Amino acid sequence: MRGGLVTLGEALGVVAATDPGPLAPGAAMRMDFAGAEATVAVGVRRLGHESAWTGSLGADAVGRMILERLRAERVDVSRCRIDPELSSGLMLRERRTADRTRVTYYRRGLAGSRLSVNEIDTAQIAAAGVLHITGITPALSDSARAAVDLAVDIAAAAGVPISLDVNYRRALWSPGRAAAELTKLTSRADILFAGADEAAMLLRTGGSETLVSVAESLAALGPSEVVLKLGAEGAVAWADGVLLREEAVPVTVVDPVGAGDAFAAGYLAGLLDGGSVSERLRLASLCGAFAVSVPGDWAGLPYRDELGLLDGADVQR
Amino acid sequence: MRGGLVTLGEALGVVAATDPGPLAPGAAMRMDFAGAEATVAVGVRRLGHESAWTGSLGADAVGRMILERLRAERVDVSRCRIDPELSSGLMLRERRTADRTRVTYYRRGLAGSRLSVNEIDTAQIAAAGVLHITGITPALSDSARAAVDLAVDIAAAAGVPISLDVNYRRALWSPGRAAAELTKLTSRADILFAGADEAAMLLRTGGSETLVSVAESLAALGPSEVVLKLGAEGAVAWADGVLLREEAVPVTVVDPVGAGDAFAAGYLAGLLDGGSVSERLRLASLCGAFAVSVPGDWAGLPYRDELGLLDGADVQR
Amino acid sequence: MRGGLVTLGEALGVVAATDPGPLAPGAAMRMDFAGAEATVAVGVRRLGHESAWTGSLGADAVGRMILERLRAERVDVSRCRIDPELSSGLMLRERRTADRTRVTYYRRGLAGSRLSVNEIDTAQIAAAGVLHITGITPALSDSARAAVDLAVDIAAAAGVPISLDVNYRRALWSPGRAAAELTKLTSRADILFAGADEAAMLLRTGGSETLVSVAESLAALGPSEVVLKLGAEGAVAWADGVLLREEAVPVTVVDPVGAGDAFAAGYLAGLLDGGSVSERLRLASLCGAFAVSVPGDWAGLPYRDELGLLDGADVQR
Amino acid sequence: MRGGLVTLGEALGVVAATDPGPLAPGAAMRMDFAGAEATVAVGVRRLGHESAWTGSLGADAVGRMILERLRAERVDVSRCRIDPELSSGLMLRERRTADRTRVTYYRRGLAGSRLSVNEIDTAQIAAAGVLHITGITPALSDSARAAVDLAVDIAAAAGVPISLDVNYRRALWSPGRAAAELTKLTSRADILFAGADEAAMLLRTGGSETLVSVAESLAALGPSEVVLKLGAEGAVAWADGVLLREEAVPVTVVDPVGAGDAFAAGYLAGLLDGGSVSERLRLASLCGAFAVSVPGDWAGLPYRDELGLLDGADVQR
Amino acid sequence: MRGGLVTLGEALGVVAATDPGPLAPGAAMRMDFAGAEATVAVGVRRLGHESAWTGSLGADAVGRMILERLRAERVDVSRCRIDPELSSGLMLRERRTADRTRVTYYRRGLAGSRLSVNEIDTAQIAAAGVLHITGITPALSDSARAAVDLAVDIAAAAGVPISLDVNYRRALWSPGRAAAELTKLTSRADILFAGADEAAMLLRTGGSETLVSVAESLAALGPSEVVLKLGAEGAVAWADGVLLREEAVPVTVVDPVGAGDAFAAGYLAGLLDGGSVSERLRLASLCGAFAVSVPGDWAGLPYRDELGLLDGADVQR
Amino acid sequence: MRGGLVTLGEALGVVAATDPGPLAPGAAMRMDFAGAEATVAVGVRRLGHESAWTGSLGADAVGRMILERLRAERVDVSRCRIDPELSSGLMLRERRTADRTRVTYYRRGLAGSRLSVNEIDTAQIAAAGVLHITGITPALSDSARAAVDLAVDIAAAAGVPISLDVNYRRALWSPGRAAAELTKLTSRADILFAGADEAAMLLRTGGSETLVSVAESLAALGPSEVVLKLGAEGAVAWADGVLLREEAVPVTVVDPVGAGDAFAAGYLAGLLDGGSVSERLRLASLCGAFAVSVPGDWAGLPYRDELGLLDGADVQR
Repeated sequence: MRGGLVTLGEALGVVAATDPGPLAPGAAMRMDFAGAEATVAVGVRRLGHESAWTGSLGADAVGRMILERLRAERVDVSRCRIDPELSSGLMLRERRTADRTRVTYYRRGLAGSRLSVNEIDTAQIAAAGVLHITGITPALSDSARAAVDLAVDIAAAAGVPISLDVNYRRALWSPGRAAAELTKLTSRADILFAGADEAAMLLRTGGSETLVSVAESLAALGPSEVVLKLGAEGAVAWADGVLLREEAVPVTVVDPVGAGDAFAAGYLAGLLDGGSVSERLRLASLCGAFAVSVPGDWAGLPYRDELGLLDGADVQR
Repeated sequence: MRGGLVTLGEALGVVAATDPGPLAPGAAMRMDFAGAEATVAVGVRRLGHESAWTGSLGADAVGRMILERLRAERVDVSRCRIDPELSSGLMLRERRTADRTRVTYYRRGLAGSRLSVNEIDTAQIAAAGVLHITGITPALSDSARAAVDLAVDIAAAAGVPISLDVNYRRALWSPGRAAAELTKLTSRADILFAGADEAAMLLRTGGSETLVSVAESLAALGPSEVVLKLGAEGAVAWADGVLLREEAVPVTVVDPVGAGDAFAAGYLAGLLDGGSVSERLRLASLCGAFAVSVPGDWAGLPYRDELGLLDGADVQR
Repeated sequence: MRGGLVTLGEALGVVAATDPGPLAPGAAMRMDFAGAEATVAVGVRRLGHESAWTGSLGADAVGRMILERLRAERVDVSRCRIDPELSSGLMLRERRTADRTRVTYYRRGLAGSRLSVNEIDTAQIAAAGVLHITGITPALSDSARAAVDLAVDIAAAAGVPISLDVNYRRALWSPGRAAAELTKLTSRADILFAGADEAAMLLRTGGSETLVSVAESLAALGPSEVVLKLGAEGAVAWADGVLLREEAVPVTVVDPVGAGDAFAAGYLAGLLDGGSVSERLRLASLCGAFAVSVPGDWAGLPYRDELGLLDGADVQR
Repeated sequence: MRGGLVTLGEALGVVAATDPGPLAPGAAMRMDFAGAEATVAVGVRRLGHESAWTGSLGADAVGRMILERLRAERVDVSRCRIDPELSSGLMLRERRTADRTRVTYYRRGLAGSRLSVNEIDTAQIAAAGVLHITGITPALSDSARAAVDLAVDIAAAAGVPISLDVNYRRALWSPGRAAAELTKLTSRADILFAGADEAAMLLRTGGSETLVSVAESLAALGPSEVVLKLGAEGAVAWADGVLLREEAVPVTVVDPVGAGDAFAAGYLAGLLDGGSVSERLRLASLCGAFAVSVPGDWAGLPYRDELGLLDGADVQR
Repeated sequence: MRGGLVTLGEALGVVAATDPGPLAPGAAMRMDFAGAEATVAVGVRRLGHESAWTGSLGADAVGRMILERLRAERVDVSRCRIDPELSSGLMLRERRTADRTRVTYYRRGLAGSRLSVNEIDTAQIAAAGVLHITGITPALSDSARAAVDLAVDIAAAAGVPISLDVNYRRALWSPGRAAAELTKLTSRADILFAGADEAAMLLRTGGSETLVSVAESLAALGPSEVVLKLGAEGAVAWADGVLLREEAVPVTVVDPVGAGDAFAAGYLAGLLDGGSVSERLRLASLCGAFAVSVPGDWAGLPYRDELGLLDGADVQR
Repeated sequence: MRGGLVTLGEALGVVAATDPGPLAPGAAMRMDFAGAEATVAVGVRRLGHESAWTGSLGADAVGRMILERLRAERVDVSRCRIDPELSSGLMLRERRTADRTRVTYYRRGLAGSRLSVNEIDTAQIAAAGVLHITGITPALSDSARAAVDLAVDIAAAAGVPISLDVNYRRALWSPGRAAAELTKLTSRADILFAGADEAAMLLRTGGSETLVSVAESLAALGPSEVVLKLGAEGAVAWADGVLLREEAVPVTVVDPVGAGDAFAAGYLAGLLDGGSVSERLRLASLCGAFAVSVPGDWAGLPYRDELGLLDGADVQR
């Protein structure tokens, strides 16, 4: 097997309300952690490929929890930075109604933003099967953006495919700065994951174009492979002038957060499998279905031997 | 009745692990809030006296939760500041073992630190029965320290007794700065609450002195009334050259956090009652007992008509 | 702004099973409280208008819990009666299946039924923007019915619009007595809220009429504005000879109880806003959607700044 | 084996807070049921003797739950009355602190008070090994008191030993009426269970007498066997001029409610075993220990083959 | 009334994860028990007919729990075997996603497999209104299969109708052995319950036949009445050359496990009622709806007086 | 640093009741896993030394959970056997009272018993700092006993110290077989851990000897270092003719299970530290204190930087 996935980014502790309603004294919460890139690393690893995640964490309970769980998953965390002074970041999730969450972030100026080029290992990236980055990391801090840029430079030089999930977060930067930076990253990516809103932001369009024209316009920015995530409508992948569509796997949705990262994990695992675009899409769709039918961002991700549970087969006895 | 209690400070959201053990994904947590001064305000209000608390909160779910609960308690929060930009602070409590908690604070540079002289209402303080301050507030920020100083100036000018709970927090400032500032505040206080460690810090002693000599040395710094909190050994109050001792009320301890604030609330309610030092100590001790035998910092505080539950009476049928 | 909402009625403690199934030893229950009129008062207050609720409660833990929460919401409870002898009422909710609850009421002869004309404040009602009553209160006791009648008299004399939610409860009185009393109240109402069954009861019809003819027939009884609640089919409002329809906002329903009261709260807040019938219906519909997608009767009611969560916008990140 | 235990009384649904603190919206509660006589019946049955309990219950979820559980225990409930109109009673237990509960009863005028002579089965009582009654049942209603009196008459006539647990409940009747009625019942009892307070009430003394003199004074009222329950100090039994003492079994107390009933169950099972007074006391003490180290009133009662868990043996592996 | 239902089989303890996701340390689980035949016995009993279940259980906590609950339901368990040496079986249920469970069985060589002809009571079966067996019991062990065969012989000789639910479990035996044994049992059954897969297995067909032809082919194997369970599509019953269809009752599904057993219970209770095939199907469908809208296999089964909750009526107030 | 700890044995899934009382339908349980040797491996690793654990697990959810957690802890599990056919073992823990648990094991003939010499890695053991074995593993199966014997042979040949924790389990083998086998293993051990009962079994004495004479007698069987665990009375270590005593660290005990393994982990980590016997005992005692004040067997084990929480320091703020 060729090398696996390498990724870098931020992981935060999560404290999420278990029941719908405004936060109130005595409300039951649940501890967890989240991070788009770490979720992708876990997803690819569960499907049987090597993966590595690099980030900066505090020397505290949250940082330890995150590292331990990633080690449990056999994700390579050996390049992570443990900050001796700053706390790990945290997000507080109110489940305002059964369908709507509201999040307060505690991340600004905390350990995660100290990710820097010091954590970048040239040999590791050069040997990877794919480098995966998101639009979140460059928004964290100047040093984090520099780390992403260096990683991209190394991958490009070594001929390692670069995967970019746009993951535009309004809370982290202004639309103007985001569009500029994300367009630059898009121009260097081989594979691009985007939602409809994100595509519109990159293309400065109104979002009413056909899927084919959106995909082609995005491809014109650089990537040879464009994957559009359409939520309940499934997803499409454009490559070599062909647009393939995959329906969403019908499941009971208990927590939609993390679906996009699970989808990317499945797609990239399919890439590392050497599968066709159609096979990648199917694996991506299954991973997304597993993720949304389990609470939390990463816990539901499927192991290779579990795919059959949602793949055609009926409930087993 | 003369006026009630006025206090000011910071209140934070709290997310506390319900079961002992290192934080782990899926661990059950419980939402709450905490703040030494707000706890005192609630305690005094439940015992039947007016009370007011002033702080700075974010325009978010945590800020709303805190304000709503204080309104539920009929604590006057009309001078609070709602910050349009910053989040309310948060503390994450790991219950590392049944007896030891570890806390990560998310408060630096957040809404609570913006408390300032703008929130100080001269008329409110001048009409109060007692002004209560703690050693936490001046450590939050320059503006918060200025607010405390102004409040003390107003109270002193109006002849309102000033109560100070030392509440030394190592995480907030260095021992040097803390000692200087707290000594200055002590010199202006009429009533001083301190633990053994805090007394030693203020007096620069080793902690091996007798209780009488410690109390007298503290009184020499300014206060006419010195209350030493001795944990399971109860408490002593020194006033007019007399040292009175009160045993701790024997209860099952489920959460020791907040005991000191409950104790101060009881003592100050006794003061507002016009009770003797002995009566104040007894009320303080009962409040402490209620607080430690209920989870959370403020929830267990007794209403006046509940005092009999722990005061001599046996379990009722 | 002109005055806000004034209402009166009964509030009960609620102990509701959290999981579906027959009640069994060890079953998990959840403490709460309920009361159609109190829910309306909370809903209107969260949307920014003054509101007042008056009822009679026991001097016990349930009574204190209800008053504290209404104070937290800034609902004016200053006219409430605290009964020194009788307990607050209680309802025990079995969640027999995921979709069906069964309730045992403990209310007969308890504190809530002692609501009387002594609690009616003429000045408060005369200054109100709307008086809201329901068909539950007159069924509680003779003294409660007299209180409702007096409130209606005062409002009518002062030109305060009267809102009536039929809220027919079979367990409280016979169909005959209910129809007589509710018809009388309807004749005095300006705004009438009714479900399809309730409309049929008032009109002594079979329920197969068109919505327009039902609304017109009800309007012929007195009200100038008739609002028919149609559950999953949304709602219609008839006024000035025009019938407007509003679809239900599509959400995940976790607890349908309280939907009608939330709807009325939204409608009346729209009235106090000075909004059009169409705007009132939309606000009513949003409030109903918030209420049913959060457990409990009142907890899910939206604050003004939260309406956007369900109003067109997609799940936020 | 001679006949087993027959008893009669009231059983109520219980909704008890699981965590200490004032009742609040969202607080976790736990469904259960309670009844002093039913607990004794369960305890005796688990130790291997027949037992029967007779009461009056509503045709509702609580009534069904109680009957089902007693059937699960093989307690004979065949003489119970199911009231077609009234609800089963309920008690709401606030756990105000870790050590103190407060209860609101919903029982007055409900199904339990309709127990009457119609439910008394002469043959069943006449064939019993012991009739057990408590001071609660005659306080419920005139018809319930008549039922107790008839049961006592039948037992006395048939030579069946009569056991009385004083169980004085202040909330149910005045001290005067209680003392008169309980003295009368005591005069007919063969075995008397009382706490220190109850003994003082029956003897109109101050409670400062020696245990021997208290026991002898009680025996002078009628019973040939007097058992005094001393809580943490264990218990004593007086019979034939001899006073035997039994220490309480040292266990972690998680719920003291129900301890006295468990104690009585053990004592009476020992009687039915044909055991000595010393053996009865030991069995009583073990049952009390099991009961208090498990939540709820009856759930912790030991099966015969479990006694060894607390009887001398250490924690097993 | 003629005799009730007699059945025999295995019951196991169940430990089921409450939340979706892979099993993890600290995951919340829920204790319960399961057994296809015991569920049918409970369902028939709740609908008012006598029922008896016979199995073999360990002398342990799980065995006691199962017996107690069946006694609570008034199911006759007097012929059960308590094994002095072997433990009761157990199943561990991972809820891998919201819609998929995975089970590990601990049953091989444990108490349940020791069911034997010694537990068969000829008189009991001969007096029954129906004997119900499933395809699980003969797969447990040779002795269990012999017990089933003897029960069938007795019923056949006494003219007692024999009901067979195919209940094919892949984990227990090979398709070959299963098909042979189940075909033999089918040939002796009067009423046959089967799913689509099971019908295909019995008929060695591909499953693409019409429902009528499947039913007729199965009837050709022996049974005069064939009931095909079609999941969300409802069910059909074939008898006397007529095929009747019944839609599934629309409810929120919270736990599909146990639906088939509930369905069979309803159908057989309808048979014991003397109802028509159409009435049996309706009762079966209602029982299935109750079962799936409550967690656990048996807890949701309806009592006769509860059927109206799902039968046409809307949510009650 | 010299090599770390190598150990081998069985690990089982655990399903433990969270609340005291007999197992009942609906009871809350908690998933976890346990294994004396794995707990020691985790404890040593958390204190900073390499450790390896080898066992045999099923290819199921429980096996995966155990491996993942050990990987999270950085315990080397690379030699583990994954059995393709058999399930991982399980234990069901009833918490019969607050102080007494009862366990049903599902382990006989399951994956854990297939541990064999095939899993023994000569190089790994020869390079270890200590080999730790327990008296549980040889009782599992012939193949497991052979694996232990081979490991001991390798360690002895390589001069690696051998640590034996007697861990006598009555349920696994007869006293006769156990004594013979455990005496043989003791003769080969350098360090012996035993409780009072276990010492008595090995020495065939009544348990009334002095600690010194017990330790000397055990040392006479082979080990140069004998550690006696005395529960609440702490522990003693005998080496070089000197007996050292260490008091138990006073903590709130929430779960005593796993205390002995935690103690051994601390002692052996102290050995690997190069610490004195006194230092080893102190570390052992601290580890035991952490373990019992957290639920579960291994979760509470301290990381090196946490020792201060219970070591002299007071509760931190």
